Amino acid sequence: MNEPAGPRHRVVIVGGGFGGMLATQGLRKAPCNVTVIDRRNFHLFQPLLYQVATGALSPANIASPLRSIFRKQKNTKVVLGEVESLDLPNKSLLLKDGAVIPFDTLILATGSTHTYFGHDEWAVFAPGLKTIEDATEIRRRVLSAFERAERETNPTEKHRLMTFVIVGGGPTGVEMAGSISELARQTLRFDFRNIDPRTARIVLIEGQTRVLSMFHESLSAKAKACLEKMGVEVRLDCHVVEVGPDHVVVKADSGQAEAARIETQTIVWAAGVKASGLGKRLAEAIGGIETDRAGRVTVNNDCTVNGRSDIFVIGDLAKFTGADGKQLPGLAPVAMQQGTYVAGLIMRQLKGDTSAHEPFRYWDKGSMATIGRAKAVAETGGLRLSGAIAWLAWLFIHIMYLARFENRVLVLFQWISNYLTRGRAARLITGEMAHKPEDPNRSVPRGETVVKH
Amino acid sequence: MNEPAGPRHRVVIVGGGFGGMLATQGLRKAPCNVTVIDRRNFHLFQPLLYQVATGALSPANIASPLRSIFRKQKNTKVVLGEVESLDLPNKSLLLKDGAVIPFDTLILATGSTHTYFGHDEWAVFAPGLKTIEDATEIRRRVLSAFERAERETNPTEKHRLMTFVIVGGGPTGVEMAGSISELARQTLRFDFRNIDPRTARIVLIEGQTRVLSMFHESLSAKAKACLEKMGVEVRLDCHVVEVGPDHVVVKADSGQAEAARIETQTIVWAAGVKASGLGKRLAEAIGGIETDRAGRVTVNNDCTVNGRSDIFVIGDLAKFTGADGKQLPGLAPVAMQQGTYVAGLIMRQLKGDTSAHEPFRYWDKGSMATIGRAKAVAETGGLRLSGAIAWLAWLFIHIMYLARFENRVLVLFQWISNYLTRGRAARLITGEMAHKPEDPNRSVPRGETVVKH
Repeated sequence: MNEPAGPRHRVVIVGGGFGGMLATQGLRKAPCNVTVIDRRNFHLFQPLLYQVATGALSPANIASPLRSIFRKQKNTKVVLGEVESLDLPNKSLLLKDGAVIPFDTLILATGSTHTYFGHDEWAVFAPGLKTIEDATEIRRRVLSAFERAERETNPTEKHRLMTFVIVGGGPTGVEMAGSISELARQTLRFDFRNIDPRTARIVLIEGQTRVLSMFHESLSAKAKACLEKMGVEVRLDCHVVEVGPDHVVVKADSGQAEAARIETQTIVWAAGVKASGLGKRLAEAIGGIETDRAGRVTVNNDCTVNGRSDIFVIGDLAKFTGADGKQLPGLAPVAMQQGTYVAGLIMRQLKGDTSAHEPFRYWDKGSMATIGRAKAVAETGGLRLSGAIAWLAWLFIHIMYLARFENRVLVLFQWISNYLTRGRAARLITGEMAHKPEDPNRSVPRGETVVKH
Repeated sequence: MNEPAGPRHRVVIVGGGFGGMLATQGLRKAPCNVTVIDRRNFHLFQPLLYQVATGALSPANIASPLRSIFRKQKNTKVVLGEVESLDLPNKSLLLKDGAVIPFDTLILATGSTHTYFGHDEWAVFAPGLKTIEDATEIRRRVLSAFERAERETNPTEKHRLMTFVIVGGGPTGVEMAGSISELARQTLRFDFRNIDPRTARIVLIEGQTRVLSMFHESLSAKAKACLEKMGVEVRLDCHVVEVGPDHVVVKADSGQAEAARIETQTIVWAAGVKASGLGKRLAEAIGGIETDRAGRVTVNNDCTVNGRSDIFVIGDLAKFTGADGKQLPGLAPVAMQQGTYVAGLIMRQLKGDTSAHEPFRYWDKGSMATIGRAKAVAETGGLRLSGAIAWLAWLFIHIMYLARFENRVLVLFQWISNYLTRGRAARLITGEMAHKPEDPNRSVPRGETVVKH
């Protein structure tokens, strides 16, 4: 309705995450028609998803409706839909609902999801943390486990219900382990009558020899010490070799140690990331384009794919190798900077500027991860911070990057409230009744087992 | 763990709604063991559920974990479970998960749900509004209808997608109609490119000759005028005779008018309430106890059931006839006052006071209903208010009655923000992808129809 007439250049952006959102915003004043396609009607601030999963925040606090973000951007329309296939000869996308979306320039920014390294059958027992639904499902499982433990009379079963295993010692895994520990030791401390939630066992499993391996070794060591002080059992250098309805089996990578079985009701998967399937389909459609083992598309130094100056791939979907030969990590700041860069490039092209352009350069402002209340690690340039000061920096930056003013206030208020009361108000069990006897986690009979740990 | 030893009197309260919560709190200092049983782990502030259904608030803002409410109440434990059957000879309850809960005194406060007057097959097309899941499902449907209209090219179908029918002109129906109108005319106004959400058709259907029939006629008339000014089509004195995947058929009660078919994608059921099924099971178990057509249990003037001084029924589950011969309405204040009254009665009994007790008397502080931004009606005693002053009174009272301080601040801030920006931040489509072709609302083929309105 607000679409100007005439054949304007059409930029189609698939994905409303950090990359797609910044690319769209960068084209705010561009003389082109922008179409943003997403499966969901909101942009999700994934770095805080673990706080939804542990009842500290509500889903809407970290989600912003895409139409709301772009409502004043008159050259932009939002399409709720999922790409079914790419028709490159006709320069168009086919959506699952049958709609055809033609483009002159295409930006793919569909991100990544978690992977079970060939064991997709583990997904039902060990959900990952990528969507709002994942987060509310994990919240349901964690809270329901305590509820069932409260009613359980068998001590072995009670112990199993109160054991929480987090697979993956990256930022998400560390944040989940720390949050579950705080939930158990502080928030729920006085909530039950038959169990002491402080006795919950929380196990964090990491394949490498340290947690938060993208950080300096000294910070990894600090994070590990911090987690252990909070009662988290950190198991390094070992892999999960089996996941079942009531247990995981963990095998140490070095040494002759036998595999150890951990009886648990609740497993959170925070290991392994694979790119959205659209990358592979793009590579197939173009031909001669590489995707790596994680399904990421190799891109040129201006984020285009080989031979197609009209197709950009950014964010977690892209495999970008810097001038130093290092691959960029799958982080929100990379996606955001690539989105802004690509928008700038398109602006130049639209203005007829055909002079050589600068390659994309990632400005690494640093990394940070929270472990718990007033506990975090951060590094920027040569500076390494930990403890309360890193935590405050973390708070400040995460509040700042939330997409809407209202959410900033809501999140800040809830964090202050959670800090003062050690509470987590959003600990609702929703979606499925907690007491349902047909709990899928229990329907599989448990066999004889040797518990080693 | 915190349970005192020895045979203390056991009070079991089924239901953590307004009645059950107030009864439990009233027994805070009673020398007895209190057990609260609920299917959900939270108390829900149902009067604001329509704000979740229209994206103004998040579920957690109007839900408070029961364990959190009663955490400091040492004589009280919370059991997450659902009552399967009553074993009155043994004075115990059997839960669905097999647990047996013995009681000395029983308080049933399981409330009510919506009813389709014998047409349960309508439920799938016209969800009611009683639970968090109902609210997020209605939110999904309303927002998805706009999304699909944006993509639809057929004008008839577009019109059908942008038609919203609310069945029932009580407070919930009026609030839903007003909220959907504001969502369409204000919040979403600039969000779309192919549709003008302000042209959405909103129809409110009421069987009686006026909306909000529990109010004075002058306020009903004001509410109706208000709704019509907001673009809501109010149809009085007519009933829904058919509900399908893509339409409702409405028949006027008086006159010879033919039934009219309204093509619509989104129907909200706000008519008819029936008591929880536990009432009937209680009546059967005791024998000689009446339940009315809505399944409510007839209670004595002290909320006990005939012949059982140890069993109380309160709130929406009870049919209480006052000294004036009038039945009490199914409202939160009635349930709350009955909960407090029953707790007081039990306290007296525990102290050995066997003197005659006063019957329960409902103190009617008045009623209020919101229509929209700065629009409400309220009456208390002989005083009748409407417009901004009634709305402010409504705001104040609802904030005051929210169970937790944190939620009061969060709701107040969001209301201020919504008021200033006309926004609704929590308008997330969650639970099911909006674009799914297998939308159940569309899978049934539509027949030939004559549209009359």
